[in-house]
Amino acid sequence: MFQYSDAHGALATEAARCRTKIRTGEYASQTAGLAPGCVQANLMILPRSWADEFLLFCQRNPKPCPLLAVTEPGQTALPSLGQDIDVRTDIPRYRIWRDGELVAEPTDLHEYWHEDLVSFLIGCSFSFEEALLADGLDVRHITQQRNVPMYRTSVPTHGTQRLSGPLVVSMRPFRAADAIRAIQITSRFPSVHGAPVHLGDPGLIGIRDLSKPDYGEAVDIRDDEIPVFWACGVTPQSVIAHVRPEFSITHAPGHMLITDLSNSGLATL
Amino acid sequence: MFQYSDAHGALATEAARCRTKIRTGEYASQTAGLAPGCVQANLMILPRSWADEFLLFCQRNPKPCPLLAVTEPGQTALPSLGQDIDVRTDIPRYRIWRDGELVAEPTDLHEYWHEDLVSFLIGCSFSFEEALLADGLDVRHITQQRNVPMYRTSVPTHGTQRLSGPLVVSMRPFRAADAIRAIQITSRFPSVHGAPVHLGDPGLIGIRDLSKPDYGEAVDIRDDEIPVFWACGVTPQSVIAHVRPEFSITHAPGHMLITDLSNSGLATL
Repeated sequence: MFQYSDAHGALATEAARCRTKIRTGEYASQTAGLAPGCVQANLMILPRSWADEFLLFCQRNPKPCPLLAVTEPGQTALPSLGQDIDVRTDIPRYRIWRDGELVAEPTDLHEYWHEDLVSFLIGCSFSFEEALLADGLDVRHITQQRNVPMYRTSVPTHGTQRLSGPLVVSMRPFRAADAIRAIQITSRFPSVHGAPVHLGDPGLIGIRDLSKPDYGEAVDIRDDEIPVFWACGVTPQSVIAHVRPEFSITHAPGHMLITDLSNSGLATL
Repeated sequence: MFQYSDAHGALATEAARCRTKIRTGEYASQTAGLAPGCVQANLMILPRSWADEFLLFCQRNPKPCPLLAVTEPGQTALPSLGQDIDVRTDIPRYRIWRDGELVAEPTDLHEYWHEDLVSFLIGCSFSFEEALLADGLDVRHITQQRNVPMYRTSVPTHGTQRLSGPLVVSMRPFRAADAIRAIQITSRFPSVHGAPVHLGDPGLIGIRDLSKPDYGEAVDIRDDEIPVFWACGVTPQSVIAHVRPEFSITHAPGHMLITDLSNSGLATL
């Protein structure tokens, strides 16, 4: 049994309350803003035949693929992320992929689950964005109520035998002093992408037009602002989509797993 | 009595050896590269009538004016910076200013000293540059064997009744990934200027032409590099020069006080 402090207990209680609503079907929308202070996680489920190699890929690419937890084949609980989590029911909406094609978007996995599946829970920028907002920074896509803009770059990931592809980055514009502060803050969160990988000229990492993101939505960038780029958790999905495994499951974008962990607990310092 | 660890003892011994050579006149040149690992400090000496206000100015502007030590009036020892330091003899070359005009560049202060003088020892970027080099970064002015380029900006300092003026910054160009790393590293050294104050467009802080620094020498900036700007210890000298006190003493540029403190000991983390 985990023993939580009182403060952490309140967070975990709220996380459990949200998961119950999601599990029972009472809630099936995006999770941004739910259970403030709790770590939310991206999901990637692969058959055992791909799992070891995907684990290696994550090990080689910790900035886009910061692993919070990996299950044994068939395991549905995630005790290191929270009490009584069931990975088959506790995410509001899933995406089922066959040979790289999206075939369904169910709200639970009972119809699709089998004992061969391995689940990877990957850190999400929600955690560091909470820290940026707490410091008073203007996180533009939140201010503009949009999805964060994401771009495929010309920067290759460190590949494995079958898995390779370009790094995907998310972008947030800041004035220089705030960009420096954002680098300091996100450096404290290596398990959720950590410090940026680039700033300034988008062309240097192969991005042609910031107004045309490959995923998410464009945001306004003012004349005195610098685009700052973080490694993005969409990278592994993009890599997997490229190799088209016979079967895989992800969360639907923005529909994350709410864990009992505290965002501030991820800070290294 | 201070008790040093063995490792620190070796540093302090080397610092003391250098100071002895300087005190006896055997060495009278710039101190860059001497006693590697030891903190070097800028010097500002003012009459008591200016000292309290300069102390307040430093308190309000810790990034350009990080104070390592302040003496009582007339005090010549600096026990918190090293054993047996004499501020009148242990810097290779001084500058004597009367009414804002440079009147002499002696190698000791015996002719100029009086009991009314207060000494301010201010952190120097040598300390964080050592950390940047240790991490493998290309610090351009060191590679090019030049003085660091420094610029007066349009950014005002936080003034006192009589002391005010623009922030002076030093500039080091880096590729984006190295700029991010440099921000992380220098953030650990708040007592030697800390994190940068700006990066990118020089015009946003009132710098018209990077090839024409106000102090030091220009360095090459490559197409894929971003200029990164740190608050500079020349700021207080620039402010003092502007108000032209009846008498003041500084070190000659590059001729610093070598202390017993270790650079790594300044790191906050």
